[in-house]
Amino acid sequence: MDQELPPTRADYPVLHEMATRWLDNDIYGHVNNVNYYSFFDTAIANYLIEQGGLDPWRDQVVGFCVESGCRFRRGIRHPDRVTAGIRVAKLGRSSVRYEIGIFRADELEASADGHFVHVFVDRASERSAPIPAAIRAALSRLLADPEPTPS
Amino acid sequence: MDQELPPTRADYPVLHEMATRWLDNDIYGHVNNVNYYSFFDTAIANYLIEQGGLDPWRDQVVGFCVESGCRFRRGIRHPDRVTAGIRVAKLGRSSVRYEIGIFRADELEASADGHFVHVFVDRASERSAPIPAAIRAALSRLLADPEPTPS
Amino acid sequence: MDQELPPTRADYPVLHEMATRWLDNDIYGHVNNVNYYSFFDTAIANYLIEQGGLDPWRDQVVGFCVESGCRFRRGIRHPDRVTAGIRVAKLGRSSVRYEIGIFRADELEASADGHFVHVFVDRASERSAPIPAAIRAALSRLLADPEPTPS
Amino acid sequence: MDQELPPTRADYPVLHEMATRWLDNDIYGHVNNVNYYSFFDTAIANYLIEQGGLDPWRDQVVGFCVESGCRFRRGIRHPDRVTAGIRVAKLGRSSVRYEIGIFRADELEASADGHFVHVFVDRASERSAPIPAAIRAALSRLLADPEPTPS
Repeated sequence: MDQELPPTRADYPVLHEMATRWLDNDIYGHVNNVNYYSFFDTAIANYLIEQGGLDPWRDQVVGFCVESGCRFRRGIRHPDRVTAGIRVAKLGRSSVRYEIGIFRADELEASADGHFVHVFVDRASERSAPIPAAIRAALSRLLADPEPTPS
Repeated sequence: MDQELPPTRADYPVLHEMATRWLDNDIYGHVNNVNYYSFFDTAIANYLIEQGGLDPWRDQVVGFCVESGCRFRRGIRHPDRVTAGIRVAKLGRSSVRYEIGIFRADELEASADGHFVHVFVDRASERSAPIPAAIRAALSRLLADPEPTPS
Repeated sequence: MDQELPPTRADYPVLHEMATRWLDNDIYGHVNNVNYYSFFDTAIANYLIEQGGLDPWRDQVVGFCVESGCRFRRGIRHPDRVTAGIRVAKLGRSSVRYEIGIFRADELEASADGHFVHVFVDRASERSAPIPAAIRAALSRLLADPEPTPS
Repeated sequence: MDQELPPTRADYPVLHEMATRWLDNDIYGHVNNVNYYSFFDTAIANYLIEQGGLDPWRDQVVGFCVESGCRFRRGIRHPDRVTAGIRVAKLGRSSVRYEIGIFRADELEASADGHFVHVFVDRASERSAPIPAAIRAALSRLLADPEPTPS
C-alpha cells in the first residue's frame, strides 16, 4: 500500500459536508468501507446537480461510474460529520476523473482518499457522449490547472 | 390507510436535521421507503448517544428494535435536507415507543410519520433489562406529559 | 407489542429466498431493522416483475409504498439465508396490502412479520391509477380468498 | 482506464453466488457502483467465516479494509444473480490482497473486477497483528501459486 502523506483540505477546491448514519457502522463499530463510496457518489452528484445543472430525472446525458478506488487511512465512527473534498484530475471529452478526500469532523488530514471516474453516456443508447457544456464548465473549475471552458 | 392530518414540527420536542444521499433515491427517483427507517434509526441513536450517554461500542444494556412502522405521505428526492422530529409516546421499564415525523427542507407538515419501539436488553444474554437511568432521563424529556426521572 | 403467535411458512402462498450481506449486520451484530424493509421491498418487487410483468424501467404505472410496518421477533445474523413469505390481505382498485413473513434459514416460524401497502400511480403525474391487469392477476393469486381476475 | 480484457470465471478459485436487491438499482436503473463493494465485502467475509473460521462477533483479530478499487465494465440490473470470484494476489504476515470478479447471471466474462486489501488488527488496540493460522490456511488456498501453510 501507498505510504505517501494523506491529502489535506487545502488540496481540494470544493468541500461538501455530510453526516454519518447509524447504519454506516458495521459490526466492528466503524463506518464500513462500502459507505465511503456512497460519500464519494453523493458529493460528486451534488456538485453536478448544484453547480453543473445536472437533472438526474430527465437529462439524456448522464455520468456512469466506470472506475473507483479508495485508501482507508484512519477509521470514522458514527455519529460524526464527514467532509468530502473534490478536485478534477483529468477532464476529457466524455469522461472525468475526480479525486476525493474524506475528512472527519474538523481534521485537516484526510481519513481516506480515492478516485472516481465518470463516463458520460446517452441514457437511452448507453453510448459515450460529450460532457454537456454546463457540467464541463462546473468541472473545469475543479481542475488544478483549469482549462478554458469550450465556447 | 389513515386519513388523519400529517403531524407538524411543533408536535415533536426534538428535531434532528440530516441530509439525503445519492443512493437514497431508487429507480423511481424518490427516496426509497427503506431509507426512511434509516432516518428513524439515526435520529433516535444520535439522541440516545448525545443526550442519554449511550455508548454503543461498550454499553452492556442497549436498545433493540422490536417494532416499527411508517406512513409515507409525500415523496422526498435527493438532494434534499430532511429533519426528523422525535417524541416519546410511552416509556416503560425496559421499553420505549418513539413517534417520529420526517420533514422535507423547511416544510412544516410531515412528509412521513411513524413509530419505533426499543426494548433494552442485556447485550450478552439478550434478555430485557431496565432502561439505564441516564437514558431514561433523556427519554423522559421527550414525553408529551413527562414523568419524573427516577432517582 | 402484539403477543400473538408468529406466522409460519404455511401462511404464505409465495416464498422468496434471499441471502444476507455483511453490511446487514449493525454494530450489535444482528441484521439491522432497516434491512428487513429491504427484504420486503425486494421480495415484492421480484414477484411483480416475474409474475406480474412489471417493467420498472419503462412502465407508466408503478407502485409507490404508502405504508409499511414490521414486528421483529427474533434476531438474524449475517451470514444466513432469509426467506420472505408474501400474501395479499387486501386488493383494491389502485392499492394492495401485502403481508410478509421473514424466515431464517429453514425455520418454520417467522423471525419477523409485517405489512406493506402499494398505491399504483401514473409515473408522470404521480396520481393514483388502476392496478394494471397483469399485475392484478398475479396479486389475486396471493389472496387468502382469491377474487376472480377482472376480464 | 485499463483496456485489458475482462477476467473470466476460470481466473478465480472460489465463486460465491449472491442476488441483487431492489435498492441496488439507482435512479439510472442499474446496480449502483457503491453496491459492488458490498458484493466484495460479503463474498470475502463469507469465505473467511465459512473456510477460515472467522468469528466476527468474538474474535480478537479481525480484518480491516485499507484499500479497495473496482472497474465497472458492463452494467447489472436488479433483479439478477451475481457471482463473485475471489483469488488472493498477495498474502503477507498481517495483510492480504484479494482480487475479485463480479459476474452477471451465467456470463463467463466479468462485468466488474477489482481488488480489496485487508490488514488484520487486534480489535482492542487496532494495531496490526499476524493473520490467524486458520484464516491464513484458508487464504493460502486462494493463491495462484499457493505458499505452504505455516505450521
